[in-house]
Amino acid sequence: MEPGTARIAVDLLGGDDAPAVVVDGALRAMRADPDLHLLLVGPTEAAGELIGALDPEQRARVAVRPVDASVGMGDHPVAARADSTVRAAVHAVREGSADALVSAGSTGATVTAVALGLGRWPDVRRPALVATLPAVDGPVVLLDVGGSLEPRPATLARHAALGVAYAAVTHGVAAPRVGLLSVGTEAGKGDRARRLADSALAATALPSGGRYVGLVEGYDVSLGTRADVVVTDGFTGNVLLKAIEGAYAMAGGPPASGGAPRAAALLGVAGTVVVCHGAARGDDLASGIALAAHLWRRRAADQVRALLNGADAGDRADHTDRTTDTEVRTS
Amino acid sequence: MEPGTARIAVDLLGGDDAPAVVVDGALRAMRADPDLHLLLVGPTEAAGELIGALDPEQRARVAVRPVDASVGMGDHPVAARADSTVRAAVHAVREGSADALVSAGSTGATVTAVALGLGRWPDVRRPALVATLPAVDGPVVLLDVGGSLEPRPATLARHAALGVAYAAVTHGVAAPRVGLLSVGTEAGKGDRARRLADSALAATALPSGGRYVGLVEGYDVSLGTRADVVVTDGFTGNVLLKAIEGAYAMAGGPPASGGAPRAAALLGVAGTVVVCHGAARGDDLASGIALAAHLWRRRAADQVRALLNGADAGDRADHTDRTTDTEVRTS
Repeated sequence: MEPGTARIAVDLLGGDDAPAVVVDGALRAMRADPDLHLLLVGPTEAAGELIGALDPEQRARVAVRPVDASVGMGDHPVAARADSTVRAAVHAVREGSADALVSAGSTGATVTAVALGLGRWPDVRRPALVATLPAVDGPVVLLDVGGSLEPRPATLARHAALGVAYAAVTHGVAAPRVGLLSVGTEAGKGDRARRLADSALAATALPSGGRYVGLVEGYDVSLGTRADVVVTDGFTGNVLLKAIEGAYAMAGGPPASGGAPRAAALLGVAGTVVVCHGAARGDDLASGIALAAHLWRRRAADQVRALLNGADAGDRADHTDRTTDTEVRTS
Repeated sequence: MEPGTARIAVDLLGGDDAPAVVVDGALRAMRADPDLHLLLVGPTEAAGELIGALDPEQRARVAVRPVDASVGMGDHPVAARADSTVRAAVHAVREGSADALVSAGSTGATVTAVALGLGRWPDVRRPALVATLPAVDGPVVLLDVGGSLEPRPATLARHAALGVAYAAVTHGVAAPRVGLLSVGTEAGKGDRARRLADSALAATALPSGGRYVGLVEGYDVSLGTRADVVVTDGFTGNVLLKAIEGAYAMAGGPPASGGAPRAAALLGVAGTVVVCHGAARGDDLASGIALAAHLWRRRAADQVRALLNGADAGDRADHTDRTTDTEVRTS
């Protein structure tokens, strides 16, 4: 556990089995991390249930932001309620009452609320959901795992840069290798989207000494032998992550290095945000809260942003050299 | 082992490590199955190496169709050579010298050679590669796993019918449940292709009492709790299958029920064809040959075809009823 206070806003109504699993997960997270503070966003009854299970020292690390469960009720009362809590959690981060937020609610609603409330980075059109899988030779960073189902080639190239910076900042990977997921490793393998993306990735300036190694296959996500960062569309990334989780369940449990994660970091937005699987259990929520605290303590979002700016400046400098324009713009 | 002679044409030059792994696989298959006959298609030296390792009884079950390795050599000599052996294997099946064929060569080249040489079924626009994964409650039939990377909704609906018939014929599944792979189970989840396919599948007449159960997720491919047949595009199916294989390797080995297959049946063509992974090893080739023999002994292709015709006749009868046209067309 890294030291340092981390104040995490938790969406009590996010997730299929909310608020029970969120209360359970928050309780586990509080007990595991003595520097963790939680801002519970949602109905006071659910917050009260959690607080009742804490000792006095722990209680001093919990605050409540009540959100009336009846707010926004209409034709789709549950969705409206979940949406109102994630928006309140975003508001808490924006006003500085929390350092980061965690939700197991609808990914789409969370991404929208975060993009509107905290803002996207100006050069990231589509934020990416990033999952880290333990593999043979270290972690594999997989993105996107559900944020952007039909990305354009330029978005995949941007996600490659995000993934490289994230691997360097969060996992300490030096000169990360980036692969584009496809059905074979020879150039030209894959559908039209992959062929376009292959060219876009090859032409992208990557931070942290990252380099594009070309096409990789499904094995490479679970084994990690060819790449440290695997880029794909959110549809494929999402079904892949769940298939790996299912395979570990079939095989009698995940490997000693760890299983498929059920919490993902949202990158490309001005804040620290973790999205948990809608079917998350208590331990998934706890690991999502721990991930948010870890990212905040490392100031991962700020560091990723800085690395991206540096790579872009280098990229622009390269272009400048080629066009004999001596002005080097910085952002 | 089911009884009955099965004569399998084997492409000696298909696969990244051909002909060595093909010779190895053919040898294993011959030793495991006393009713197996092989037609070795390729260079005589490779065939001779295999024959030299057999006893006299086994030798009597092997024939050779020499294909000069220099045929078609040009700018891309290796590809041209592999292509010439798979075309010769197709020819052997067409003329009745073999009952089925197995190749670990390029999937695209094999599908093309088979479609041209043996023909597609008239109502199957795109043949499907079908893989069977052992799961908790029995086998899961996954298709397509690499034949058709960007299928139209109508193709996915056709593949659903193929998968249902295959599950019934090959695995004895009664009233197979079919799911469409997506990022969630609620209606509307997924990209545009999935939303269109969901409607197409819901409107499709399925053979063997099959029924469409809607969207399923990545877990369902490895665990099999929601569906017996999972339909997806060949891109997603291919990366998924390989990710599951990698996960089993990470977990220390596949479950007792078996791992992810490295051989797939090609359905929708007028013949029995098995395609092995390009990176196939000897045991993968042996299991591909065993699968081809099994499918032939069950006359699986003919049975699947008959079930499809029956479902289509029923479908047309339904339409006829609705339009008050009393003529029931049969095919």
